Amino acid sequence: MEIEKIEELIEEKEYVRANEALSTMNEADVTEILAACDPYKTLLLFRMLPKRLAAEVFSRFTPEQQLDIVSSVTSEELKDIVNELYFDDKVDLIEEMPANMVKKILSVTGEKERELINQFLNYPEDSAGSLMTIEYVDLKKHMTVRQALDRIKKTGMNKETIYTCYVTDAERRLEGIVSLRTLVTSDEDLVIGDIMEPDIVRVNTHDDQENVAHSFKKYGYLALPVIDNENRLTGIITVDDIIDIMEQEATEDFQRMAAMSPSEEAYLSTGVFAMAWQRLPWLLILMVSATFTGRIMGRYENILTQAVVLSAFIPMLMDTGGNSGSQTSTLVIRGLALGDITTRDWWKVIWKEMSVSFLVGVALAVTNFVRLLLLEKIETPIALTVSITIVVTVMAAKIVGGVLPLIAKLLKIDPAIMAGPLITTIVDALALMVYFVAATALLGL
Amino acid sequence: MEIEKIEELIEEKEYVRANEALSTMNEADVTEILAACDPYKTLLLFRMLPKRLAAEVFSRFTPEQQLDIVSSVTSEELKDIVNELYFDDKVDLIEEMPANMVKKILSVTGEKERELINQFLNYPEDSAGSLMTIEYVDLKKHMTVRQALDRIKKTGMNKETIYTCYVTDAERRLEGIVSLRTLVTSDEDLVIGDIMEPDIVRVNTHDDQENVAHSFKKYGYLALPVIDNENRLTGIITVDDIIDIMEQEATEDFQRMAAMSPSEEAYLSTGVFAMAWQRLPWLLILMVSATFTGRIMGRYENILTQAVVLSAFIPMLMDTGGNSGSQTSTLVIRGLALGDITTRDWWKVIWKEMSVSFLVGVALAVTNFVRLLLLEKIETPIALTVSITIVVTVMAAKIVGGVLPLIAKLLKIDPAIMAGPLITTIVDALALMVYFVAATALLGL
Repeated sequence: MEIEKIEELIEEKEYVRANEALSTMNEADVTEILAACDPYKTLLLFRMLPKRLAAEVFSRFTPEQQLDIVSSVTSEELKDIVNELYFDDKVDLIEEMPANMVKKILSVTGEKERELINQFLNYPEDSAGSLMTIEYVDLKKHMTVRQALDRIKKTGMNKETIYTCYVTDAERRLEGIVSLRTLVTSDEDLVIGDIMEPDIVRVNTHDDQENVAHSFKKYGYLALPVIDNENRLTGIITVDDIIDIMEQEATEDFQRMAAMSPSEEAYLSTGVFAMAWQRLPWLLILMVSATFTGRIMGRYENILTQAVVLSAFIPMLMDTGGNSGSQTSTLVIRGLALGDITTRDWWKVIWKEMSVSFLVGVALAVTNFVRLLLLEKIETPIALTVSITIVVTVMAAKIVGGVLPLIAKLLKIDPAIMAGPLITTIVDALALMVYFVAATALLGL
Repeated sequence: MEIEKIEELIEEKEYVRANEALSTMNEADVTEILAACDPYKTLLLFRMLPKRLAAEVFSRFTPEQQLDIVSSVTSEELKDIVNELYFDDKVDLIEEMPANMVKKILSVTGEKERELINQFLNYPEDSAGSLMTIEYVDLKKHMTVRQALDRIKKTGMNKETIYTCYVTDAERRLEGIVSLRTLVTSDEDLVIGDIMEPDIVRVNTHDDQENVAHSFKKYGYLALPVIDNENRLTGIITVDDIIDIMEQEATEDFQRMAAMSPSEEAYLSTGVFAMAWQRLPWLLILMVSATFTGRIMGRYENILTQAVVLSAFIPMLMDTGGNSGSQTSTLVIRGLALGDITTRDWWKVIWKEMSVSFLVGVALAVTNFVRLLLLEKIETPIALTVSITIVVTVMAAKIVGGVLPLIAKLLKIDPAIMAGPLITTIVDALALMVYFVAATALLGL
């Protein structure tokens, strides 16, 4: 049934018919429909959903929506939801809920699971451990393909993925992986130890999620095993979670590069004060830094008084410098994030930026020179001063824009900070100094 | 074996031992090792690889490396590689190769396949059709689970994925999907028509890749079917290809937002002239636009001559305005790209930016006012002029930064163009106008 029709049914309070339709739909669409209702109807419809679907929908809700549900349902209902959740979603839920709700949730989970949840809560934020789940298929080396398939048939429906199976020894150490593709295309009498892949790509519980995402991209796997320092298998991470992480990492970079503290919350659901707070610190820092540029203007005040026409070119020079630097820093920051550029490429970056910036700078300067002479009828010495400043500024801006992200990477600072806004502030000062020095020399001031 | 050890073997020309080691490794690592060798050794080692691995490595090479291989191997060797390639990789290869190599490649493919390749080459760039492959498992409604599993066992190793199977009728119309998870956990006598999922998420051959990526993110599937306008199944797209697309789309946005033409090529492998050409047009446009700001300076020359101290604050005002606008435009552009913000959220964005910018603007202005009075010993009227300009500029910048990406979206222009550099140019002019008007009023000039 189409989404609009169900929304109509809900509008008309035909809840039973709406529920019948929802029960046959996929969880992403159901979540979308319920999230768009008013809270009372969301809760009502949610309680009517089949258990499994309810849990899937619940795990896709925002923390605010989850809180609404958790605080409204009975213990019995909550137990049904929590039992159906995958372990990683359980841990996420507990991380997001306020203390009294955490208590309510833990009261409906078994003791063993409570211990495991506590252990998982200790993994650092943004680490592989905080992303992984425990519902994987584990097999033993001595099993035959038939035994393995039987085991999957029995337990497979409760696993996050069954497409990659993990072969472990008695101490839970990871010995190999075998894909379901290999299992279903192999002779049923073969032994797992003979068909498994022993050369396994793995990540450590404490690896950063950015590195985990790199491994997924490089190898193209659907899931990766997570091991602890003793090489014991502690969980798996699946590709769908990594897609979210990749978006989140890119969003963080976008925000840092525009001089903001990164935030995971969506624009429309972030409060006004939180948003002001996300933006203010860097604006303050950059505002105060820009006074340094102002000092340079102050120092050369006499030149501006003598040739006030020079001031008209200052915005253009500052903007061109800033834009040139932002271009380069963006390319280098993104190259570092994707692994295309490493800190060993130092000289390649500098050399490339010197060549490119020379070409670009000269092209801009010549255009500008011709325009000033012919269209604006500016005197030659002034046009020359402006044009020389353009070449020098563009070159300086592009080299600074290329080098600063690399320095940040070496110092283990996020290179995304060395983006447009900061580069612009630095380049502004450079541009003005070059401008006034050139003016002093060429105009005899 | 570790990568360093194999590199040592290659260094010592122990090619046979190196090949033995490479043959047991996974294709991503082999690609990395071969790509790092000099071209002669790459070719030599590549020709020694087992067929299947060679094809996998080949499909991961850059077009330049592929060209090296294609032009060096014999027709017989080329046939082996091309036969082993997945269909989407074949189409990509032919798209990238020069005409004479395309001829060489087509001469080793069968006639039927040549026709299909031609058809696929006609799909628009960045469309679902240009991403899909044809190696999927198709099942019929009347089959039993056992028959389906038998079919997969026979043909599964040559499919891009077997984890989602597609149920089609005699006219190749898509009737449902069934996951391998469902197949292996179901009773072997059940009929596919009874266990398949008839409510299928699908994309059309002409859908844009960005929308395809959205569907993958929303539903979390491992593969999506691609249908033509007659609802016939023409191919599938798998999640690993979508991960590349997502990175590519984010990279394009980063580049556009830093005033560059987007390019798919990696930083280090882009030539100097190509790179200058990628950067020059926008720098030129912005440079010429900035002269408008210069005109405003020129118009108020007499004010600057009378109170030359005012010029010292111009860089700070311009930068603060530009940075404020960039913050907002970045959030809105990213929100639009992720689907968090739609063009219907017009008033919400304006309202949020008005509130946030008021808070941020006042905080910046107060800090600045106090600093100017106490630390810099500036006269009160001038400090007041600067501070009022900050509030007005920050508010104007944030509203412009919020609205322009939305207008772009409505006009079907990429919102990423309405980012920092363009916003800065507009806001610079605004900031100066406000500044001079405030100065005229407050300083009695």
